[in-house]
Amino acid sequence: MKKWLSPALLIVTFLLSAIGHYAGWNFTLQFILSSISVIFVAGFLGKATESVAHYAGQRLGGFLNATFGNAAELIIAILLIREGLYDMVKASITGSIIGNLLLVLGLSLFAGGLKFKIQKFNMTLAGLNGSLMTLAIIALFVPAVFLNTHSITEDETKLLSLIVAGILIVSYIAWLGFSMITHKEYLADVSEDKSDQDALAHEQEPTWSKGRSVLYLIIATVMVAFVSEWLVGVLEPISHEYGLSELFIGAFLVAIIGNAAEHSAAIMLALKNKISAAVEIAVGSSLQIALFVAPVLVFVSFFMGDTMDLVFTTLELVAIGVAVFIARSITQDGASNWYEGLLLLAVYIILGVSFFLV
Amino acid sequence: MKKWLSPALLIVTFLLSAIGHYAGWNFTLQFILSSISVIFVAGFLGKATESVAHYAGQRLGGFLNATFGNAAELIIAILLIREGLYDMVKASITGSIIGNLLLVLGLSLFAGGLKFKIQKFNMTLAGLNGSLMTLAIIALFVPAVFLNTHSITEDETKLLSLIVAGILIVSYIAWLGFSMITHKEYLADVSEDKSDQDALAHEQEPTWSKGRSVLYLIIATVMVAFVSEWLVGVLEPISHEYGLSELFIGAFLVAIIGNAAEHSAAIMLALKNKISAAVEIAVGSSLQIALFVAPVLVFVSFFMGDTMDLVFTTLELVAIGVAVFIARSITQDGASNWYEGLLLLAVYIILGVSFFLV
Amino acid sequence: MKKWLSPALLIVTFLLSAIGHYAGWNFTLQFILSSISVIFVAGFLGKATESVAHYAGQRLGGFLNATFGNAAELIIAILLIREGLYDMVKASITGSIIGNLLLVLGLSLFAGGLKFKIQKFNMTLAGLNGSLMTLAIIALFVPAVFLNTHSITEDETKLLSLIVAGILIVSYIAWLGFSMITHKEYLADVSEDKSDQDALAHEQEPTWSKGRSVLYLIIATVMVAFVSEWLVGVLEPISHEYGLSELFIGAFLVAIIGNAAEHSAAIMLALKNKISAAVEIAVGSSLQIALFVAPVLVFVSFFMGDTMDLVFTTLELVAIGVAVFIARSITQDGASNWYEGLLLLAVYIILGVSFFLV
Repeated sequence: MKKWLSPALLIVTFLLSAIGHYAGWNFTLQFILSSISVIFVAGFLGKATESVAHYAGQRLGGFLNATFGNAAELIIAILLIREGLYDMVKASITGSIIGNLLLVLGLSLFAGGLKFKIQKFNMTLAGLNGSLMTLAIIALFVPAVFLNTHSITEDETKLLSLIVAGILIVSYIAWLGFSMITHKEYLADVSEDKSDQDALAHEQEPTWSKGRSVLYLIIATVMVAFVSEWLVGVLEPISHEYGLSELFIGAFLVAIIGNAAEHSAAIMLALKNKISAAVEIAVGSSLQIALFVAPVLVFVSFFMGDTMDLVFTTLELVAIGVAVFIARSITQDGASNWYEGLLLLAVYIILGVSFFLV
Repeated sequence: MKKWLSPALLIVTFLLSAIGHYAGWNFTLQFILSSISVIFVAGFLGKATESVAHYAGQRLGGFLNATFGNAAELIIAILLIREGLYDMVKASITGSIIGNLLLVLGLSLFAGGLKFKIQKFNMTLAGLNGSLMTLAIIALFVPAVFLNTHSITEDETKLLSLIVAGILIVSYIAWLGFSMITHKEYLADVSEDKSDQDALAHEQEPTWSKGRSVLYLIIATVMVAFVSEWLVGVLEPISHEYGLSELFIGAFLVAIIGNAAEHSAAIMLALKNKISAAVEIAVGSSLQIALFVAPVLVFVSFFMGDTMDLVFTTLELVAIGVAVFIARSITQDGASNWYEGLLLLAVYIILGVSFFLV
Repeated sequence: MKKWLSPALLIVTFLLSAIGHYAGWNFTLQFILSSISVIFVAGFLGKATESVAHYAGQRLGGFLNATFGNAAELIIAILLIREGLYDMVKASITGSIIGNLLLVLGLSLFAGGLKFKIQKFNMTLAGLNGSLMTLAIIALFVPAVFLNTHSITEDETKLLSLIVAGILIVSYIAWLGFSMITHKEYLADVSEDKSDQDALAHEQEPTWSKGRSVLYLIIATVMVAFVSEWLVGVLEPISHEYGLSELFIGAFLVAIIGNAAEHSAAIMLALKNKISAAVEIAVGSSLQIALFVAPVLVFVSFFMGDTMDLVFTTLELVAIGVAVFIARSITQDGASNWYEGLLLLAVYIILGVSFFLV
């Protein structure tokens, strides 16, 4: 991880991306530079968040980690909302969920499975995560089913989206209360593999002082906001230049770039046989997107004057449903092997080809 | 339970409801009085059924309990069929299933979970119930898929509905044979928690003599028939007065009133840490609705001259599918906590808002 | 098994079928004769394959068994493609999958369950098979969803079908590598019931010498090709004479005839309490159809000049989805009883009636 987050690379890519943007370089080059820069600053932001969380104490820290874990994606999405690119926002939500459940989890199980024959992980947590994910799917499906089968006004759709978003946020806050307060010990108890817990804890070990952590958090947030802006600015020209749909750009390009930091962390952990921690990152991240990022974006758009509804396209819903279904099927026995990782990747490729062909 | 079923309250609410009906009081008042009365007489009918079942011996008694357990709902539904309100009948079937799996089970797990950290229940029975519920969903989905994708006549739809209803009733009778004759000991064996079994048995302890039980069963049935008639009579004016759809009235108002007795029993048991028994009431009751009440109503409508088909609306099918899916997800690990109850309630609210907005 | 595969019956039914075909007997009679003959020669082909596989050594043998296990169905399907009967091909793929998962598995569990109260089988393998089956469903669903929700050209649909077929074949080959090379011992370990393994091994005990086995394999393949041709030739006249749809003929008649050998083998094993082996035949056979036969047929049609797409009808997709869902629900607890077999058969009948009514 050290290399990836080294200050030199962080600053150089950020500056190159800035120069590219203000000097008006070729769109493709701008896209490549800002993408690389987003990956580094998102990693920096993640590390700063963890460090601040460490000093904030267990409860507030857990809350910070859980809610700011997807800050980069949230900022990119808010910028897309400002541009009115609602379809791309929903595509990037879809892409983050399937990217975490199929690509990250798939690569982790595949790479880990090639090195270790069978890898075991926590079943109880997988079961609870599965039920949470089921709630998320239901919440995302109901508005679409409702809209497609009954003649309702746009206002009613937006009202329903706001209510559903509110229920999701309440459920997410209740989940934080459950996992960090009332059933903290229970969830810790069920993790059979002590070293996996240590692995996650170790990732959060702070290397900076308290004051420096807060400063870095502020700097990182500002940097993320800037590079995200530069990235979002070239998405439309890129989509025209290469004939790619908003759906494909949002669901694959934006989602992979925004989640790159988690991706590499999960795969590293899997290669160290810490598969519980890898599964937790992949599944936990997709849960945060569905239960927290998506509903927050609905409220953000509401306060920005034009409510984004939660009506996903059929292909997006099928992609999310399919990803949750196969990820649950594979994680529910609490053991993994390379073939299960390959199955997840096969589904990801099938969905990728479909989105590309649209 | 004593208070709820006390004779004085039973008679007073019944009489008030009768006076309201025959004196032509305000519709809203009539609706409230007959709703309260239905709850009491349904409780009385349930208790009388259990008492007669006790004297009828184990096998016949089990059969009586299993088939007359939803007598109040069956009577209300038959009255709705007589009025030609087929959409409301199907909505109330939907509402009973999701009400049991989401509201009753959700409140039980939530209330029980707040009092007891982790509650454990029987997994084997949950698995079998899950498979039965899957059959029920398939049976309810196939006619709708068939109708929506192929141009077939109304007569063919009714024929298919009758055949599917016949298969469901045969499956239900076979289930009674399986659980009460061939695998009686096996299912008893798998219930790890002896006290839960006692809890259910205790509920069935008769307080009346044999002759009195039979007499009460007859009286209760007559009372249910009357108050159901009064209730059904005001549903249409109420729907117009408050601008509620048939779908919402059937799926939420009628379903909650008709199942109130089971609801309170399940929550009481959960609060006594008898969660196996509470789960059995909630899941068992929804199974009876899907595998017995729904197909019986198809045959009743057939004999009344105009066959009701089993074609549910997409929103109803989604609601049933979603309820079964998340209830299975939550029960299959054999342990529950308050958060799982909250998830079920969250889904119930999302569905409730959707049905309300139609 | 001896009786069924006795040489006399094999030759007599083959000759009668040949005479019927060349003398131009009544279509119904030709259909009956060639159907019976297909069952015998498919059994003969299966036995010859196993015998050759035995001499080919473990790895190549396992591969031969796994890929030529559905040779009869493959040959019938190729002949249907030559006639341009693409709808019937896809219906027969659907029918093979649901026939194995509902009819064969249902009859095995039902018959075995009547004789033995509870039958236990391997859960780990069931879990892996379930995940594989989920991949197969996803692969079959995505092209149809894609086509129904976006305006794409026929060429794009065919391209998507070819890509999906390629991914399925790669996944299938990887599965063979996983189960026969990298995790061979692991999968053998998890089979708790040693005698079930012996049962499968015993079925594969060769009765013929090496040279004779190869000779028989060639003869059997030629015979299958001939009788399949005769059978396929009368399907259209039969469909007109009895007013049956291509869908029903493909999904029920062709599928049942083509799988008859597996059907009888699985039920025999269940009656000997070797339920693991029976489940493996039923589930394994449906996996082979979905992951190997279906994609191979796409490529065969491509090389024959007109690519068959993988777009199944909604009713077919619902049938496959429903079959996988209830089969997984029933097998995932690792124990079976007669009632679970009856549930599978109930679903098969509901689907059969639906397909018949189209």
